[in-house]
Amino acid sequence: MAALTFQLKHTDVQSKARAGVITTDHGKILTPIFMPVGTAGSVKAVTQQQLKDEIKAQIILSNTYHLYLRPGTSVLEQAGGLHQFNGWGNPILADSGGYQVFSLAENRKIKEEGVLFQSHIDGSRHMFTPENVMDIQRSIGADIIMAFDECVAYPCEYKYARDSMLLTHRWLDRCFSRLNETPDRFGYTQNLFPIVQGGTYADLRKESCEYVTSKQATGNAIGGLSVGEPEEMMYELTALCTENLPEDKPRYLMGVGTPWNILECISLGIDMFDCVMPTRNGRNGMLFTTQGVINIKNKKWSTDFSPIDEDLPCETSQYYTKAYLRHLVVANEILALQIASIQNLAFYLWLVTEARKHIVAGDFASWKSLTLEIIKQRL
Amino acid sequence: MAALTFQLKHTDVQSKARAGVITTDHGKILTPIFMPVGTAGSVKAVTQQQLKDEIKAQIILSNTYHLYLRPGTSVLEQAGGLHQFNGWGNPILADSGGYQVFSLAENRKIKEEGVLFQSHIDGSRHMFTPENVMDIQRSIGADIIMAFDECVAYPCEYKYARDSMLLTHRWLDRCFSRLNETPDRFGYTQNLFPIVQGGTYADLRKESCEYVTSKQATGNAIGGLSVGEPEEMMYELTALCTENLPEDKPRYLMGVGTPWNILECISLGIDMFDCVMPTRNGRNGMLFTTQGVINIKNKKWSTDFSPIDEDLPCETSQYYTKAYLRHLVVANEILALQIASIQNLAFYLWLVTEARKHIVAGDFASWKSLTLEIIKQRL
Repeated sequence: MAALTFQLKHTDVQSKARAGVITTDHGKILTPIFMPVGTAGSVKAVTQQQLKDEIKAQIILSNTYHLYLRPGTSVLEQAGGLHQFNGWGNPILADSGGYQVFSLAENRKIKEEGVLFQSHIDGSRHMFTPENVMDIQRSIGADIIMAFDECVAYPCEYKYARDSMLLTHRWLDRCFSRLNETPDRFGYTQNLFPIVQGGTYADLRKESCEYVTSKQATGNAIGGLSVGEPEEMMYELTALCTENLPEDKPRYLMGVGTPWNILECISLGIDMFDCVMPTRNGRNGMLFTTQGVINIKNKKWSTDFSPIDEDLPCETSQYYTKAYLRHLVVANEILALQIASIQNLAFYLWLVTEARKHIVAGDFASWKSLTLEIIKQRL
Repeated sequence: MAALTFQLKHTDVQSKARAGVITTDHGKILTPIFMPVGTAGSVKAVTQQQLKDEIKAQIILSNTYHLYLRPGTSVLEQAGGLHQFNGWGNPILADSGGYQVFSLAENRKIKEEGVLFQSHIDGSRHMFTPENVMDIQRSIGADIIMAFDECVAYPCEYKYARDSMLLTHRWLDRCFSRLNETPDRFGYTQNLFPIVQGGTYADLRKESCEYVTSKQATGNAIGGLSVGEPEEMMYELTALCTENLPEDKPRYLMGVGTPWNILECISLGIDMFDCVMPTRNGRNGMLFTTQGVINIKNKKWSTDFSPIDEDLPCETSQYYTKAYLRHLVVANEILALQIASIQNLAFYLWLVTEARKHIVAGDFASWKSLTLEIIKQRL
C-alpha cells in the first residue's frame, strides 16, 4: 500500500490556518482534525459505533506504553494489529510511549540506549529503546507512529533541554533505521512522524525543526508543549515551529488542549491535535458545548430540561437533557460518563470541522473570534 | 387513557407456559418478558438507544426508593415524570421501595404505619407509608407500580411470616385506597400490582394469593422469593402461586433470576421477570451467551478473536471479540462494562423472545430442555 500523503486544499489569508486532506491506507482525514485518545485501545466510555456515528471521529490515538503492557504485542499480532483487535477500521495514530515513560518520574532511568522503567501496573521492569519501540509499533500496526523521544518538564534548564533534544534526534535516526529494516506487518504502510523538542528555548526549537525537517517524513509533530508553561509561551513556540516545519506536510501539536487552544493553534498552522481533556473533564462533569462551558454538577441544572447541546449535530447531545445528565452524575451512574464523553468529543470534532469550513469559506478569522467568545463563557 | 390489559395468546400444552400481550399507555409488551433494571432511572452502563436498538427491551424497571432520594419527586414532577426525564418513551415498571428499605437492615424500623429508614446516601431519616409511596409513584409516573410490601428474609419463622403477610395485605388496601383518591398526574394510567408474600409456607402463600386475587388488579406479582431459599423450593412456591393467581392477568415473579430460573418459571406460568444479574454479573466479567456461560477474565479468551456471541441478534455482541472484551476488562476500561451489560441483557431478551416463539409454535418443552443444556454449560 502507499505512504501517507497530504494535500493542502486552502490556506487562510489572514492567518496560517490550513484545510487539508491526509490519506492513509485506512482512509482519509480532513484537517484540521482532533484525535480522540484511546490509550489502551478504547476511547474511555465510548463505543466504536458512537465514535463513528455520533462523534464523527476520523482517526483515534492509542498508546504504545499501555498496549505493550496490556494486552501485549503477542495478542495484538495474533489479532492482526490494533485495527482488527478493537474493530476500529479507520486510521489510528500510536504515540511512542516516550511521554508516558517520562511521566513515571521516580520509576524510570534515561540512558543513551533507551529508558529503563517500571510498569505502573505491577512494578515489573522493562526497557524501551528506539529500536524495540519501533518493533512494538510494528505489532500495533497504527497508520501513524510517533518517534521515541524525551519530553522534558517545564521549567527545564537550557543545558538539559539541549542535551535532551540532541538525544531525541539521535533516537530519531535509530527509529528510522529500525523501521526501514523491518517490513510492514499487516499489509499497509506505517508512517513515522518525528517530534520536535527543545523545551521553551526558541533557538533549540528552531534547531530541532531543522533536524526534523531534514528527515523528510510524511508528517511532523511538535512535542513538549502544554506541559505547564504559560499559554502565551506555548503559542509563541508553536508559531515558531510551524514557521520552521515544511508547509506540505501535516503538523501535529501533541497533547493540546482546550477548545480555545485548538482554535488558536489552528490559526498558527497546526493540522492535528489530541488531548485527554474532553474525555477526562467529561468524566468529571465538565461539559464543552456550542453555548459555553457547563459544570453539570451545579444545582442550577437540576431542573433544566433542555437538551445538553441542541445545536451540536450529535444524537446523544440532543436526546438527553441537562437535568437528566446532572442526575446521572450525582447518582454516580456509568451512563453519565458515556454521555459526557460523547458530548465533549462530538464538540471537539464539531469545532475542527467548523474551523475547516470557515478556512475554506475564507472567513476563519472572524468566525474564530466570534466562536471563542461564545464557547469560552461559563454557563 | 386506559388501564393495562392482558391478552393471553397461547398456552403450552405440556406446561403452564403462556404467550401474551400486555397493553399499556406507553405501548405493548410481548410476554413472557424480562425487564432490565434501571434502579436510578438508568440501566447501568447502557444508553436508552442501546436498550431499544440492541437489547430490544420492551419495558424497564426503576426503583421508588432510589428515585425518591435522587433526583427527588420535585424534579421528576417538573420533568413530566420518569418517561420524560430519562427519555425512555416505552413502558416503565416502578418497584415500591419495599425491598430496598428492608435491605437496609439496621437502618430501618417497621411499624403498622409504615417504615422508618435512613438513607444509604447521607443517613437522613425518612418514612415510607403505603400512602406516601403511592404519592411518590404518582410523581414517578410509571405504567406499572408495585404495592408497598414487607419482604421477609430466608429463613423466617412461621409467625413472623404470617404477621408480615397480614401487614402486607393491610398495606395493600391502603395502597389501593390512596391510589384511587389521587388522579393520574401525567395523563396516562398507572396500574397497581399487588404482591403475594408469605415466606416459604405453602398455606400462607395460598392465603396471600387469594387475598391478592380478591383485589382484581390488572396484574399480580410474587415477591419474597429468590432470597436465599433452595432453588427447588422457589420453583415449588412459584408453581403454587401461579395455580392460585388469575389466569387472565399477567404474573410477575420479582427479582428472578438466572437464565435457567427464568425458563423454569416460564414453564410454571410466569409472564414477567426482572433481575440485576445480567448487568451486575456482566460488570464483573461473567457473560451469558447462546453457547454457554463465559468468565471473560479467564486467560483462555485472551486470543479468542471470535465474536462475543455470533448467534445473538445484537450488533455489539457480533462486533466485538472475546479477546478484545477480555482486554478491556483486564485494563479496567469503562467500555468493558458497556459491552458486557449489552451482551447479557440482549441475551436475556433473546431468551424470553425465543421462549415465546416456541410457546406459540407448540414445542416449548423440547426447546427448553435442549436450550437449558447449552446455555448452562461453562465455556
